[in-house]
Amino acid sequence: MQVAVIGLGNMGSPIAVNLARAGHSVRVWNRSRDKARAAVEAGATLAPTPRAAAEGSSVVFTMVADDTALDAVLAGDDGLYAGLGAGAVHVSLSTIAVATAECVAAGHAARGQRLVCAPVFGRPEAAAAAKLYVVAAGAAADVQAAQPALLAIGQRVFVVGERPADACLVKLCGNFMILAAVETMAEAMALAAKGGVDPAALLEVLTGSLFDSPIYRNYGRIVLEERYRPAGFVAPLGLKDMRLVAQSAETLRVPMPVLGVLRDHLLQTVATRGADADWSEIARVVADNAGLANRGS
Amino acid sequence: MQVAVIGLGNMGSPIAVNLARAGHSVRVWNRSRDKARAAVEAGATLAPTPRAAAEGSSVVFTMVADDTALDAVLAGDDGLYAGLGAGAVHVSLSTIAVATAECVAAGHAARGQRLVCAPVFGRPEAAAAAKLYVVAAGAAADVQAAQPALLAIGQRVFVVGERPADACLVKLCGNFMILAAVETMAEAMALAAKGGVDPAALLEVLTGSLFDSPIYRNYGRIVLEERYRPAGFVAPLGLKDMRLVAQSAETLRVPMPVLGVLRDHLLQTVATRGADADWSEIARVVADNAGLANRGS
Amino acid sequence: MQVAVIGLGNMGSPIAVNLARAGHSVRVWNRSRDKARAAVEAGATLAPTPRAAAEGSSVVFTMVADDTALDAVLAGDDGLYAGLGAGAVHVSLSTIAVATAECVAAGHAARGQRLVCAPVFGRPEAAAAAKLYVVAAGAAADVQAAQPALLAIGQRVFVVGERPADACLVKLCGNFMILAAVETMAEAMALAAKGGVDPAALLEVLTGSLFDSPIYRNYGRIVLEERYRPAGFVAPLGLKDMRLVAQSAETLRVPMPVLGVLRDHLLQTVATRGADADWSEIARVVADNAGLANRGS
Amino acid sequence: MQVAVIGLGNMGSPIAVNLARAGHSVRVWNRSRDKARAAVEAGATLAPTPRAAAEGSSVVFTMVADDTALDAVLAGDDGLYAGLGAGAVHVSLSTIAVATAECVAAGHAARGQRLVCAPVFGRPEAAAAAKLYVVAAGAAADVQAAQPALLAIGQRVFVVGERPADACLVKLCGNFMILAAVETMAEAMALAAKGGVDPAALLEVLTGSLFDSPIYRNYGRIVLEERYRPAGFVAPLGLKDMRLVAQSAETLRVPMPVLGVLRDHLLQTVATRGADADWSEIARVVADNAGLANRGS
Repeated sequence: MQVAVIGLGNMGSPIAVNLARAGHSVRVWNRSRDKARAAVEAGATLAPTPRAAAEGSSVVFTMVADDTALDAVLAGDDGLYAGLGAGAVHVSLSTIAVATAECVAAGHAARGQRLVCAPVFGRPEAAAAAKLYVVAAGAAADVQAAQPALLAIGQRVFVVGERPADACLVKLCGNFMILAAVETMAEAMALAAKGGVDPAALLEVLTGSLFDSPIYRNYGRIVLEERYRPAGFVAPLGLKDMRLVAQSAETLRVPMPVLGVLRDHLLQTVATRGADADWSEIARVVADNAGLANRGS
Repeated sequence: MQVAVIGLGNMGSPIAVNLARAGHSVRVWNRSRDKARAAVEAGATLAPTPRAAAEGSSVVFTMVADDTALDAVLAGDDGLYAGLGAGAVHVSLSTIAVATAECVAAGHAARGQRLVCAPVFGRPEAAAAAKLYVVAAGAAADVQAAQPALLAIGQRVFVVGERPADACLVKLCGNFMILAAVETMAEAMALAAKGGVDPAALLEVLTGSLFDSPIYRNYGRIVLEERYRPAGFVAPLGLKDMRLVAQSAETLRVPMPVLGVLRDHLLQTVATRGADADWSEIARVVADNAGLANRGS
Repeated sequence: MQVAVIGLGNMGSPIAVNLARAGHSVRVWNRSRDKARAAVEAGATLAPTPRAAAEGSSVVFTMVADDTALDAVLAGDDGLYAGLGAGAVHVSLSTIAVATAECVAAGHAARGQRLVCAPVFGRPEAAAAAKLYVVAAGAAADVQAAQPALLAIGQRVFVVGERPADACLVKLCGNFMILAAVETMAEAMALAAKGGVDPAALLEVLTGSLFDSPIYRNYGRIVLEERYRPAGFVAPLGLKDMRLVAQSAETLRVPMPVLGVLRDHLLQTVATRGADADWSEIARVVADNAGLANRGS
Repeated sequence: MQVAVIGLGNMGSPIAVNLARAGHSVRVWNRSRDKARAAVEAGATLAPTPRAAAEGSSVVFTMVADDTALDAVLAGDDGLYAGLGAGAVHVSLSTIAVATAECVAAGHAARGQRLVCAPVFGRPEAAAAAKLYVVAAGAAADVQAAQPALLAIGQRVFVVGERPADACLVKLCGNFMILAAVETMAEAMALAAKGGVDPAALLEVLTGSLFDSPIYRNYGRIVLEERYRPAGFVAPLGLKDMRLVAQSAETLRVPMPVLGVLRDHLLQTVATRGADADWSEIARVVADNAGLANRGS
């Protein structure tokens, strides 16, 4: 299958590599060309523009930083809108706002084009191992068309609705829940630590019984060992995601008090620990607020 | 082994039954005698007082409603303090305050007696199936002495510290995390529902990927189907537990903003839905606050 | 002085009337012309476009619903940018985002024009009585030039900075504080009411001692008597203002947990009581959540 | 009138002095006798026990640190219960829990004695100037009997109910509202400061318009100038008061989300700034969390 990947950051790059390895014919594009090396080494071809990457492709993935970056690769003479064929499907992998997804869906529809939103759960290591969880939404036929390519990058594809934006809402809910789990663990660990109980013992109980799941195991270890740097997902991006959740919550009139806690702690993280902090570093802020010294130091 | 079980509520009763079935010689006591039937049918003997239940027992379990009830079975001529032998171990299974555990530990120590705190995770069905998770703390020899009895009631025993109160703090942390997970799911599901996404699809994504653990599966289903009644654990008891967490947080100077959200939602649950509501019914309050109609109706 | 007023809602209309009564020569414009009646009866002239209203005026007030409406009256051939003279000052009275104010300031500067932001505190009755509090910011000479007109509409003019956007930030802070005072009173009154203490007695103590100020007296009475309708300031507009505060808080990295409470309660107000609710109706939501029946019913 | 004052801390001492100056015959008692000097110099007599202070007095004031201290001066052979005459009135000036007030009321009633709760608003300077605001509750005749003495220590007496505990609930509500006002100002000032607006300008707008009341003027200045030490009211005592509010909120089933914010910030204050911090120092914590450097340093 002819596949394009637009956006070769620390997620897009391993995705392109896995597509090439799976035997697909892959064209890639990235704003700065030097990020394309790994993909090219795996057999992908570098296209000069998003349009050129899209022309002739059956599936075009976009994996870009945010809503603005997505608009940028879509628009203009060199853009994806101009290059996407009638039978092709644009599969947006980025975590974007529900409103943006609706807007892009309308943009494609006006051109007789097809869109699937398919944001993914997983950090760069999961992308490299083709172990992403893919959350897809769109017309059934469009999702069907994208399946072979999606299966090359993830361990499982969940189909959550027929409107592309549905997948974005589910993905945003998921990111909210991940960070809420980190916050909750951090509050409990701070309490245990100040009470003289080893947080490692607490974590073992949790992940050994009722919270035996990847999020609690992985983030629990990060929080326990305070292994926040280098960041896997920087706090300003986490803040962006939580803002997208909040925008949907405001539009849909849904009070979400835990979301408020998360946003405040992300703001404190960036304000006091810097813009290069990991989003899970809200756990360090929770410890700071309790007067706990850094365990790592 | 000669074992006593004091307190035969919906947790204590199946625990006593399992001890009898495991071949231990069991004596039981409960304030109202009619609750003892299941245990007696399983082979346990009904004792006239806590003291009588304790005398001659190697291990004495207490599983009572709250700190006050524990004090009541300990004190007085008919109480556990009076009946517990020098070599015997009192194993407190209830979820009690850290301060209460310290107080009871001191009470036993002053009498040359031994205490293990071993609160459990699991609802009555888990107790009946001997699948509880036991969180134990106390002097190593005392925990060791209690092990055979603990293994008869649970699927796993975690030892978290040498001070009995350590287990209480871990248990309180766990209960806080369970309710936080319910709150978080409820906020996400309310957002999905108002956004036109099937909450069942959201839940399937979560429990099929990053949140593949018992808490999210079981409570997720309860929240999804709004199966709150009859309550497995009533909101006022949940409120009591969260108050115990808050007492430790205040004593230890640990800000816990998510805990504040949980307490407010439990208060709203009791105020607007009644004292017989399940503690997970905070999820219905989250939906109410978003203006969502009851799915079950 | 030749003065223009663009936007004749329930604030702009009495402002135009007061300017005419103070002897200024007033031109007015509004999207729907029927709102202009009161101003015209007071002596103002109806202009066909914002541009026509602005041409020849020394001071041009804008008092429109939101940032989008402000952009609309500024732009285009018929807009304010096209009509504002070199020596004239645009005085923006609306509560707008800091970022919007910066944007408009840049727009004027690029055209060699002058901007003062001067949002006001006070409800329509205060506007009618020329008792508004005006919060102004801009170059000293520009604020000076606008003073005579500002004094005709308000009881006091506060100058808070040299950048026009400074006034917007102060105004947003003020609106946040007003709603926070309402929330706080509502929580205290709900506690008093459920405790069997007359909330009127509580209010008398507060406003008779440490909280002897207009906000507590006026909103205290509204909350006490549950006189929310017809709305003086609808909840969706309050929500918009709190969103503008939150945008600044996010840009500036300032955690504001009380703001989170206010936003959630406004969302609940709109979700459960309708889009025509007053913003102070968050107090009714606080009472609902405590299970308190409506006092007014 | 024969008046006793039990408890001569930084509030009780000036109260005793004012009573003596107003011409009353005053007997005083304090746990450590050296605190009695100012009162004795003003003409008061030092009594050897609370009982001795009470015997023969028409009105007996107690002004002690907390509920436990109140119980201590009431009980025993040397206590107030033993010394209070049938016609005399015990006037409790301390801020105590509603439940404690009910308990003490029952204790007096069982002895045919009379109780008025009359907690006061005002810092030590207000006590010295006899400018306290007194919030009284009790049987009408009892409050009447205490009036002459109350008028000697305060500028105004509010009667809020016939049950003594009513005054405690109102007082707790007031303390909650004071600290909420501090928190709110602190959040707004942090936003202004990081946005480049002089917080002094913001404060001038607020106190010059809608928030023209003692709380905003006095605490606003403290926050602005960061004049927290020496503490007028230490954070642990503020925490105690907020806990009493929370106890009533829990008993009465009233969600109070702003209260949760205040408690968390008081905990952070004590954890990171020490137990000698002023309760208004939560404003410094708000600034810390926003990454703002100390203005005073």
